[in-house]
Amino acid sequence: MKEIKRIGLITSGGDAPGMNAAIRSVVRTAESKGIEVYAFLRGYAGILDKEYKVLKFSDVGGIMEKGGTILRTARVLEFKLPEVRKEAADILRELKIEALVVIGGEGSLTGAKLLMEEQDIPVVGIPGSIDNDIPQTDMCIGVDTCLNTTIEAMQKLKDTASSHERAFIVEVMGRGSGYIALMSALSVGAEAVIIPETPVDFKAIAERIWEERQRGKVNSIIVVAEGAASAYTVARHLENRIGFETRITILGHIVRGGSPSAFDRILASRMGYEAIKSIVEGEYGVMIALSRSNMIRVPIESVLSEKKELDMEILKLAKILS
Amino acid sequence: MKEIKRIGLITSGGDAPGMNAAIRSVVRTAESKGIEVYAFLRGYAGILDKEYKVLKFSDVGGIMEKGGTILRTARVLEFKLPEVRKEAADILRELKIEALVVIGGEGSLTGAKLLMEEQDIPVVGIPGSIDNDIPQTDMCIGVDTCLNTTIEAMQKLKDTASSHERAFIVEVMGRGSGYIALMSALSVGAEAVIIPETPVDFKAIAERIWEERQRGKVNSIIVVAEGAASAYTVARHLENRIGFETRITILGHIVRGGSPSAFDRILASRMGYEAIKSIVEGEYGVMIALSRSNMIRVPIESVLSEKKELDMEILKLAKILS
Amino acid sequence: MKEIKRIGLITSGGDAPGMNAAIRSVVRTAESKGIEVYAFLRGYAGILDKEYKVLKFSDVGGIMEKGGTILRTARVLEFKLPEVRKEAADILRELKIEALVVIGGEGSLTGAKLLMEEQDIPVVGIPGSIDNDIPQTDMCIGVDTCLNTTIEAMQKLKDTASSHERAFIVEVMGRGSGYIALMSALSVGAEAVIIPETPVDFKAIAERIWEERQRGKVNSIIVVAEGAASAYTVARHLENRIGFETRITILGHIVRGGSPSAFDRILASRMGYEAIKSIVEGEYGVMIALSRSNMIRVPIESVLSEKKELDMEILKLAKILS
Amino acid sequence: MKEIKRIGLITSGGDAPGMNAAIRSVVRTAESKGIEVYAFLRGYAGILDKEYKVLKFSDVGGIMEKGGTILRTARVLEFKLPEVRKEAADILRELKIEALVVIGGEGSLTGAKLLMEEQDIPVVGIPGSIDNDIPQTDMCIGVDTCLNTTIEAMQKLKDTASSHERAFIVEVMGRGSGYIALMSALSVGAEAVIIPETPVDFKAIAERIWEERQRGKVNSIIVVAEGAASAYTVARHLENRIGFETRITILGHIVRGGSPSAFDRILASRMGYEAIKSIVEGEYGVMIALSRSNMIRVPIESVLSEKKELDMEILKLAKILS
Repeated sequence: MKEIKRIGLITSGGDAPGMNAAIRSVVRTAESKGIEVYAFLRGYAGILDKEYKVLKFSDVGGIMEKGGTILRTARVLEFKLPEVRKEAADILRELKIEALVVIGGEGSLTGAKLLMEEQDIPVVGIPGSIDNDIPQTDMCIGVDTCLNTTIEAMQKLKDTASSHERAFIVEVMGRGSGYIALMSALSVGAEAVIIPETPVDFKAIAERIWEERQRGKVNSIIVVAEGAASAYTVARHLENRIGFETRITILGHIVRGGSPSAFDRILASRMGYEAIKSIVEGEYGVMIALSRSNMIRVPIESVLSEKKELDMEILKLAKILS
Repeated sequence: MKEIKRIGLITSGGDAPGMNAAIRSVVRTAESKGIEVYAFLRGYAGILDKEYKVLKFSDVGGIMEKGGTILRTARVLEFKLPEVRKEAADILRELKIEALVVIGGEGSLTGAKLLMEEQDIPVVGIPGSIDNDIPQTDMCIGVDTCLNTTIEAMQKLKDTASSHERAFIVEVMGRGSGYIALMSALSVGAEAVIIPETPVDFKAIAERIWEERQRGKVNSIIVVAEGAASAYTVARHLENRIGFETRITILGHIVRGGSPSAFDRILASRMGYEAIKSIVEGEYGVMIALSRSNMIRVPIESVLSEKKELDMEILKLAKILS
Repeated sequence: MKEIKRIGLITSGGDAPGMNAAIRSVVRTAESKGIEVYAFLRGYAGILDKEYKVLKFSDVGGIMEKGGTILRTARVLEFKLPEVRKEAADILRELKIEALVVIGGEGSLTGAKLLMEEQDIPVVGIPGSIDNDIPQTDMCIGVDTCLNTTIEAMQKLKDTASSHERAFIVEVMGRGSGYIALMSALSVGAEAVIIPETPVDFKAIAERIWEERQRGKVNSIIVVAEGAASAYTVARHLENRIGFETRITILGHIVRGGSPSAFDRILASRMGYEAIKSIVEGEYGVMIALSRSNMIRVPIESVLSEKKELDMEILKLAKILS
Repeated sequence: MKEIKRIGLITSGGDAPGMNAAIRSVVRTAESKGIEVYAFLRGYAGILDKEYKVLKFSDVGGIMEKGGTILRTARVLEFKLPEVRKEAADILRELKIEALVVIGGEGSLTGAKLLMEEQDIPVVGIPGSIDNDIPQTDMCIGVDTCLNTTIEAMQKLKDTASSHERAFIVEVMGRGSGYIALMSALSVGAEAVIIPETPVDFKAIAERIWEERQRGKVNSIIVVAEGAASAYTVARHLENRIGFETRITILGHIVRGGSPSAFDRILASRMGYEAIKSIVEGEYGVMIALSRSNMIRVPIESVLSEKKELDMEILKLAKILS
């Protein structure tokens, strides 16, 4: 097996807390194996722009506890074009980069897969996504921290909600996925949750809040994923139907930030380490995944051929418990 | 001096973290002096509705660390009518309540002052307001926690902001006051702050962000008080002027919640204690205030005759430092 | 299959954050199935003392976010005696309790297993343990929160450590297990970790700190599990060998407290729900477990026949990364 | 008045959260006035060792939110010798440093005062001390954050304490001062507090805990300042007297760390700004202080001639409320 001397590294797509811990782990593990790491800025854009830093052990000190990614990230639409991918591959070859580690979500992994298929660039993927929407891994980097941040905010709302007689509507991230909305609603006992995976039934929500009010519960929290409805739409519907005063919170990018949780630091550290081990062992085209308590490697192709569905049993559970 | 046997207690107006610590202190200090506490629900509304609980030492165990107010709160518009205040006073007399402690903001203190002036109900006020807009006290209950909550949220935004090339706009509470917006902007080094106390100059903000971008700073945080503009208005202006992608966060009532900070717990505990001491000593019509590190008593009338202005030197400072 | 009408519930052994979320889930799911819940206080002791409350839907409102367990917990040594278990079983039968849900660690599950084997009491276990030392489940309730609490404390030490030229020694829980010590050391990049699973080599630690000092790193954090050594022993060894000033922190029970993380709330909610489903379906003698992202049921006997080993690869990883 | 072109800056003594915010404010305000800042490392030691960095606007970006001090700090015992102070002054003159800003506690301010008196070095002090033991300012930098950190830890203990029947003993910093112990005990409702300012009465504490136990309260938290007794001494006394099982936490340097609270960020930012204004206006030998909501300047000499006493009314209050 060929000994690898230099690899590339990018974080790509939406940032997720823990990405810095993964960067640190990739860099330090690589250094321990005598591998040099060229870290490109802003995902695939940095390859195309030849913007990179060579990261050493001490360059990644003190970054594990920081949210976001020190390499910045971007969504690079033109990377959907084969000729742009060829350009990137040429640059990687020119820089004598023998393998590329890609930390990101499905779009980023798709780019990696195509780079390998079309251009023969050896790649290894690490799943980072606050939506937990990547199949074949129990968890993605960033999910755990994101949920903690979300529920801390909602818990504060509950404090003030219980002092007032109002409905509070919280809009959270999730264009195509209700994961964050559902899991956070379950975690704080929200009275209702509106997600893109199921049709919105404003009438049912209004009735439920109305009934609870009759039983003496005078406040409620309704969580809505941005992909399902806007908080303003929800507010209008509820105010019309139940004459309830509502208040709106839009968490926005707050949920992407924050110092990573222990879970995300450990997950990211282990995944970065395993990615380098995979490279050292010459196994490419794989994504590192968490399976039970173990690190495994799964073909990126197989990951991308599936779609991770939201567990609808959890929606049922959330309804029973709140 | 007449010995007091029974007092009333309300939290009124907007809730503020630390109100529960004040309730606990009033109840326990009163009990140590042999005074019974009738705690009314939902501010002045609870008096009118005769909704109260007699609170004992153990009833207020474990509440200090909770945000909001266990007595709930409300804004009671009809309390602006003298005949309604008379009704409330009659109920207090009927219940043999000899003095009333009112925890709340300016509106609530106005109600208290009028109850005393018109109806001869002895009152003592405790200033609770996240906007820090009550004169003659260095700080109001709730301000400190509110600012911590606000900057924690903004700090998370900074994490993700530094991974992207965008402007993040955060709308915070403050209809008539830019206090929270200004102080939190100073505390996180926001690039701009928009407050009701000064005219909004979107052109200047856009230019500043533009210049910083030219100097290499690709992200920025703009804090806006709800009373000055909506986050959406700010976003539209900036996107039009600088073609910068923006993202919006609306914190809403989150900033009212959260477990009170040490500062608010200590302040509230001391104020509750001082309020009872004032009652025991027969000094009424006063608001308890923090002056340097001491508890003092100031006439409510004098408090209400002033207006607390925002310190514009701090706006200047925020600009120099960011 | 017999329809169950009444079950018992205990939390037992060391408390773990998330136990309250499990209690809430057991109670509310049970109520949704028409099952009454008798919740005993202080684990098995409450059965023997017939101390219980019948918990309804609203009794468990607002408890999910609280650390500890509202049912309290205890280690009941006499439950190791068969005659004491018989006494408990007689009381359960007398109270017409048809099944028992036990939330706790290995000792508690052993008690449950014996109650079923010897006394024919149907039991279902839910794994709660901050040490993550229960086999066949990916995670136990409480682990995630405990690690977050631990690393938050350590992260604060890092702040002050970097301002000084000292070694900071942090003692964490873990009599028989180095799990918390190792995982938290990995999560904060501690310079050394001392655990019961491997022999302590003070000379190697001192040399490493010495070398790092030569390379310019003037401060360090050493994590020690209480079962491996005391912080004072570690301090004495290091001060003797390297003449380095040390400072000690003993976290103690702090790491058991705190509001549960989203992970623990979700895990506990799902496990409580699954426990009731298992009872409704007549499947007993099982422990609810997390396997990948699913709830599964595993025979308690099989769980107790194994021993969960610490993953030594993680120790290696921690050394490479710090 | 002579225009100042270059100043020195040190953080000295024990580090306090918020010192970085003060550094940032000094540097950026100075730059806005055309003044260059030579920042020395490790307090007075860095002057003697001529170890410094010239800090510019961008060098202090992203430091406000960090605990500790990027300049590091040290206690420099030889600075008590006049000849050493002369040496430092000579170095400052040699480097053409026209004034020195000293951020620190009483020892550090004493050094500053002597540098000015003996060596004619113009100095301005900024009070930083987690013990809040500096007279004439309402608050010192670091106090607020330190108390929040302390009570967060204690609050977690309360969670687990309420699940057990034990006494928890928490040792906090405070060699000569019971400030942190007392204020945190008040803030969490601890059952007892042991401080250096009053004699320890173990018998009274044991009796109180015993009485509470008789009344049904089975757990308790006892806070002890390190200067009054060690947690182990307290534990031994209580276990002997009441046969109560105890558990120990020693917070140690944790309370010095953590991201500064809003209060400390604002206080530090304002103090740094005011320090530079004082220099620009040629006013030396002063310490910047918070008085009500204002920044004032007080002669260092006058500050050092007083001793800040703990407010014993607060001890009384803590007893009434717990």
